[in-house]
Amino acid sequence: MADALKIGIAGLGTVGASLVRILQQRRNELAVSCGRTIDVVAVSARDRMRDRGFDMTGMMWFDNPIAMAETADIDVFVELMGGAEGAASDAVRAALNRGLHVVTANKALLARDGVNLAALAEEKGVLLNYEAAVAGGIPVIKALRESLTGNTVSRVYGIMNGTCNYILTKMEKEGLSFEACLKEAQRLGYAEADPAFDIEGNDTAHKLSILTTLAFGSQIAADDIYLEGITNISIEDIHAAAELGYRIKLLGVAQRTETGIEQRVHPTMVPLASVIAQVDGVTNAVAIESDILGELLMVGPGAGGNATASAVLGDIADIAKSRPGAQLVPVLGRPARTLEPYRRAQIQSHEGGYFIRLTVEDRTGVFASIATRMAENRISLESIVQHSKQQVEAGKPQTIILVTHATREDSVRKAIDAIKGEGYLIGEPQVIRIERPKDA
Amino acid sequence: MADALKIGIAGLGTVGASLVRILQQRRNELAVSCGRTIDVVAVSARDRMRDRGFDMTGMMWFDNPIAMAETADIDVFVELMGGAEGAASDAVRAALNRGLHVVTANKALLARDGVNLAALAEEKGVLLNYEAAVAGGIPVIKALRESLTGNTVSRVYGIMNGTCNYILTKMEKEGLSFEACLKEAQRLGYAEADPAFDIEGNDTAHKLSILTTLAFGSQIAADDIYLEGITNISIEDIHAAAELGYRIKLLGVAQRTETGIEQRVHPTMVPLASVIAQVDGVTNAVAIESDILGELLMVGPGAGGNATASAVLGDIADIAKSRPGAQLVPVLGRPARTLEPYRRAQIQSHEGGYFIRLTVEDRTGVFASIATRMAENRISLESIVQHSKQQVEAGKPQTIILVTHATREDSVRKAIDAIKGEGYLIGEPQVIRIERPKDA
Repeated sequence: MADALKIGIAGLGTVGASLVRILQQRRNELAVSCGRTIDVVAVSARDRMRDRGFDMTGMMWFDNPIAMAETADIDVFVELMGGAEGAASDAVRAALNRGLHVVTANKALLARDGVNLAALAEEKGVLLNYEAAVAGGIPVIKALRESLTGNTVSRVYGIMNGTCNYILTKMEKEGLSFEACLKEAQRLGYAEADPAFDIEGNDTAHKLSILTTLAFGSQIAADDIYLEGITNISIEDIHAAAELGYRIKLLGVAQRTETGIEQRVHPTMVPLASVIAQVDGVTNAVAIESDILGELLMVGPGAGGNATASAVLGDIADIAKSRPGAQLVPVLGRPARTLEPYRRAQIQSHEGGYFIRLTVEDRTGVFASIATRMAENRISLESIVQHSKQQVEAGKPQTIILVTHATREDSVRKAIDAIKGEGYLIGEPQVIRIERPKDA
Repeated sequence: MADALKIGIAGLGTVGASLVRILQQRRNELAVSCGRTIDVVAVSARDRMRDRGFDMTGMMWFDNPIAMAETADIDVFVELMGGAEGAASDAVRAALNRGLHVVTANKALLARDGVNLAALAEEKGVLLNYEAAVAGGIPVIKALRESLTGNTVSRVYGIMNGTCNYILTKMEKEGLSFEACLKEAQRLGYAEADPAFDIEGNDTAHKLSILTTLAFGSQIAADDIYLEGITNISIEDIHAAAELGYRIKLLGVAQRTETGIEQRVHPTMVPLASVIAQVDGVTNAVAIESDILGELLMVGPGAGGNATASAVLGDIADIAKSRPGAQLVPVLGRPARTLEPYRRAQIQSHEGGYFIRLTVEDRTGVFASIATRMAENRISLESIVQHSKQQVEAGKPQTIILVTHATREDSVRKAIDAIKGEGYLIGEPQVIRIERPKDA
């Protein structure tokens, strides 16, 4: 049997503590699978005295994770601190510079600095693994980076934020408002006290930017993502979606278009009969469409100490099964220096179906006016309906729902502006993009 | 850049020809991803003269695949001939003996001889990759063998035969008989002229036996699988399932129980609201339940030249990215010599819910008699209903459907035998096991 693999773990929160316990409890089984034992020989966290449910005997303690990366007698540096800057970034860089393999769950760090870190890892001939950074326990990084080698990806999309999916599922199932469901998510620990990062779509955007690079071989462009959160989704939208045969999900979508790569995160109507529409609660799902394989969909836990620890463990096991210096897997699917510049397709040129919900005054000619404005912008309608669940009384505001065939975003915007100019609109129109999985 | 990886391909049917074309067309992209070029330098097939849509210049031709394995100047032997015995088996063995890496899509060979071949590969320090052998393009081997390292799997199950899933989907969607849908599947090339291997469940059993070994670390036991095909499923069953909130799928299921490992392939009721119930047509799906990660479901194309070629290509790429002798990934998840003997749990001790459809004479007391026989065998009923779509006329045969709570298979068999003894049963009772995914 080969020498033990010595690892140092920086960050002993839920995931880190879970990882250490698993490595200790399954030491023998892991040795059988990996061909050598995996030993945690160094740890770093803020509070040395806290009881984390495992025995620290034999582990060297570091108050400073950078010092651990620079000096500990380890083969692998595992970064579970989080944060795009500061200690996490400095420690990962120090570890790579020293020629250590690195495993991280840090999506923010990769979204910001992934290309440079990948180049550094490749220069040093070490592995930088990050399965846990996107969609938790779902092995989507491995699928894109290894299984799909040689495929040309056309679209990758998914439900990558459990908080948002929990809220949207609960709104639909229980008929509650966004605010009520957010509160429940906070009570259950699915949402942070400050939920903005999740519900505004930033978390999904970080993850999407990594998938985009793996899928299309372009440099990471986390700041070039069109972003809409779910705070604007009302129970009326959810009901109207269901009536029309759709369900609303917060998707991150990246696709190749003629003008460049489209990266967008927004509430999306997906057909009720599609597999991804059935993905409920905090569960995540990622779909990859490619030319040789076809469509691959993976569904699983996107967060949680254990699921995340499982992904980190898989990354560590991959290193344990390799020999130092022997592995050539490029960090981002292809060598960092060969990644192409990111060419952004603007959201205005996005093509797809649209759901549009308008509240209008009850006037003669409103229906005709809306239909005309759509036609003027060459938007073809799949359906135009009055919301059937609403008790319609003469003189009261009416709800009109339009579903368009595939059209351009700028046409939709122009049509909406024209409708706004007519004066019969009450409040803001709701516009939700439709995304069609290949199976629906 | 490292030396080119030289591969020899035995078998140039749909998958083999597709693989050669892809390797030729994407030579440059693959070199970027893998760090070296991949060259097809030798091929073997039955008919040298057939036009396969690619240029054979630079490839050495072998009429005999075993001679190719023994003498060709190659690093990797790719076996795409099929069949558990004969040339495929001899050639793979010869290649391993010679110290070549092997990639195969041959589920029958692995189901029959996988443990010995794995031991040989490990002894020679080479890789034996077989992602395409189970569920085509879905990277389930990689997930079990690599991503889930350290997890204890409790259950693995899936839709692993596209022919059966196509037939069951079509029966439900179009209300056609099994026979009519089988004919349509044959017309479309989804089913063989002799469809027995698919529709009787043998194909699923081969695949399941490989997943069982990866999941539970036991020796492959492809002959110890409880088997029921789909030929017995009627449109009445499908309608009754839908009414009760279920859909019928041919599943392969392997799970740990107290008495051993249960491996079974049979038509199964899955809850309509579960994700796997939405997997339609020739698409495959595999679910893995484990203690650290939780539930992972993967959905994708289970067959077809391109999807299968994509999986083979991923396997070749993994070899290209490694260095000879550097990789320690055990073929079956743990070294072959450490696999435990297979301990079979008998189907009689299976516990789960059951759907039972009975056709009975219209007599007083039949309902009470059935309920009594169930109670005598301590079977608790979720529902007992008269099939509501059937026009019930006095004196005509009646259909009665029972759905049980979790109970033992032998109790169900005893109860059915007792009911048979009562004399009011017309024809054979239909019994379909219910499987509950964790998400439903």
